[in-house]
Amino acid sequence: MTHHVSSMLETYPKELGNIDQQKLAECIEACFECAQTCTACADACLAEDMVADLRQCIRLNLDCADVCAATGAVLSRQTGVNVETTRALLEACRAACKMCGDECASHADMHEHCRVCAEACRRCEQACAELLATLG
Amino acid sequence: MTHHVSSMLETYPKELGNIDQQKLAECIEACFECAQTCTACADACLAEDMVADLRQCIRLNLDCADVCAATGAVLSRQTGVNVETTRALLEACRAACKMCGDECASHADMHEHCRVCAEACRRCEQACAELLATLG
Amino acid sequence: MTHHVSSMLETYPKELGNIDQQKLAECIEACFECAQTCTACADACLAEDMVADLRQCIRLNLDCADVCAATGAVLSRQTGVNVETTRALLEACRAACKMCGDECASHADMHEHCRVCAEACRRCEQACAELLATLG
Amino acid sequence: MTHHVSSMLETYPKELGNIDQQKLAECIEACFECAQTCTACADACLAEDMVADLRQCIRLNLDCADVCAATGAVLSRQTGVNVETTRALLEACRAACKMCGDECASHADMHEHCRVCAEACRRCEQACAELLATLG
Repeated sequence: MTHHVSSMLETYPKELGNIDQQKLAECIEACFECAQTCTACADACLAEDMVADLRQCIRLNLDCADVCAATGAVLSRQTGVNVETTRALLEACRAACKMCGDECASHADMHEHCRVCAEACRRCEQACAELLATLG
Repeated sequence: MTHHVSSMLETYPKELGNIDQQKLAECIEACFECAQTCTACADACLAEDMVADLRQCIRLNLDCADVCAATGAVLSRQTGVNVETTRALLEACRAACKMCGDECASHADMHEHCRVCAEACRRCEQACAELLATLG
Repeated sequence: MTHHVSSMLETYPKELGNIDQQKLAECIEACFECAQTCTACADACLAEDMVADLRQCIRLNLDCADVCAATGAVLSRQTGVNVETTRALLEACRAACKMCGDECASHADMHEHCRVCAEACRRCEQACAELLATLG
Repeated sequence: MTHHVSSMLETYPKELGNIDQQKLAECIEACFECAQTCTACADACLAEDMVADLRQCIRLNLDCADVCAATGAVLSRQTGVNVETTRALLEACRAACKMCGDECASHADMHEHCRVCAEACRRCEQACAELLATLG
């Protein structure tokens, strides 16, 4: 998907402003990937025999999917400005990815889907932090 | 909708914890209402003859709709805990509603839909602030 | 919320076309209400001691929430036309609400949240059917 | 992203049933990609000097983004069954992608972002059609 994210940024008809285009593209991509992965991980946890022990993981998966989807959409817009919201949302997305990544990582040795999901959360958490750093 | 939001909170099968149930219900309701209203306001702005002057408003409407929808969904969950994400997301939602509400209010005398939308944004901004205050 | 949905339709700056405005407002309202209720019902099912027996219900809740949210957003737009998509999406929403409503109703006597959710699904299924009928 | 989509399908803890796993992964990937691309295309159209002539395109972009996001989420779930909804939603997604792809393609020579977006819509329309064919 990164190719398409970058293509859309490159074909934007006006100036993109001061934002780091590479970090922006990586963060958008990471948000959509994490939203998909967390949706699938909540579903895989639900299918586990020990689902009763995975309630906290499912909760964090569902929240993380919602926050990542909203963040990916907001970051995909360049027209006008909404810096304050973007910054606060990136903080929320970083928090959601950290909570979910920590939880998934804690039982990644038992559930392969949680291992894959923890990776997606880590990548998105990192991408949010890096984009935030460029926003000053 | 408030009735249904409250009904679902009342029928939750476990303890709801320390959260102020009335303020929670009001905030969930305000988020869904604001998401719908901002979606409709972006569309109404798009239909205006002076759409070229309403780009900033449409941008803020679309962002606000996305953030409110995510916040309303996260707040609708009581199983497990995700306080840090909830708090950061409420801050992002408050920021999105303030930006959009300010913009809509600034030309509310020209566009009735922006006047109605500014009200929904103010109510949601206020509901987020009040719920945040109860989270300590 | 119905008041706000109607207010936004009334302040739309152009003609609304041939659509039945009352039925449209009711369907938009029902979609947002059902999205919230299904999100909360999935979460309440997750909190139940017998969560392992409620997997099918949670699946249908989550799907119904996603479809209702998308349908509510698409119906909130009046600018331009997208009749074929609207019709197909209303059919999908009706199907999602029927599946979820049937499942929730089947154990509504055991779980109050499923009883409330079944009602929201029935109302939304009905609203979709009535709006579809007016689309010819 | 396809790698992650496939990884999550491969780590699902139960049988995946009769569904064509390759076509499912491609469709999930196409839905998320199309949702991102349409969100960005609506925003790029909004930034164009001739925005007043692009209202129909923006409308179709926003609808397509919402439908693709919902379809991608529903397809990401394997627990329980919801075939009727899945089929109806794939039909809606195919319709949304066709409408948006046709519109974008009609002025792809003037707007590079519409050319890129038309490709994403075509790919998603095709992926939905192929997955529908395997559902019988």
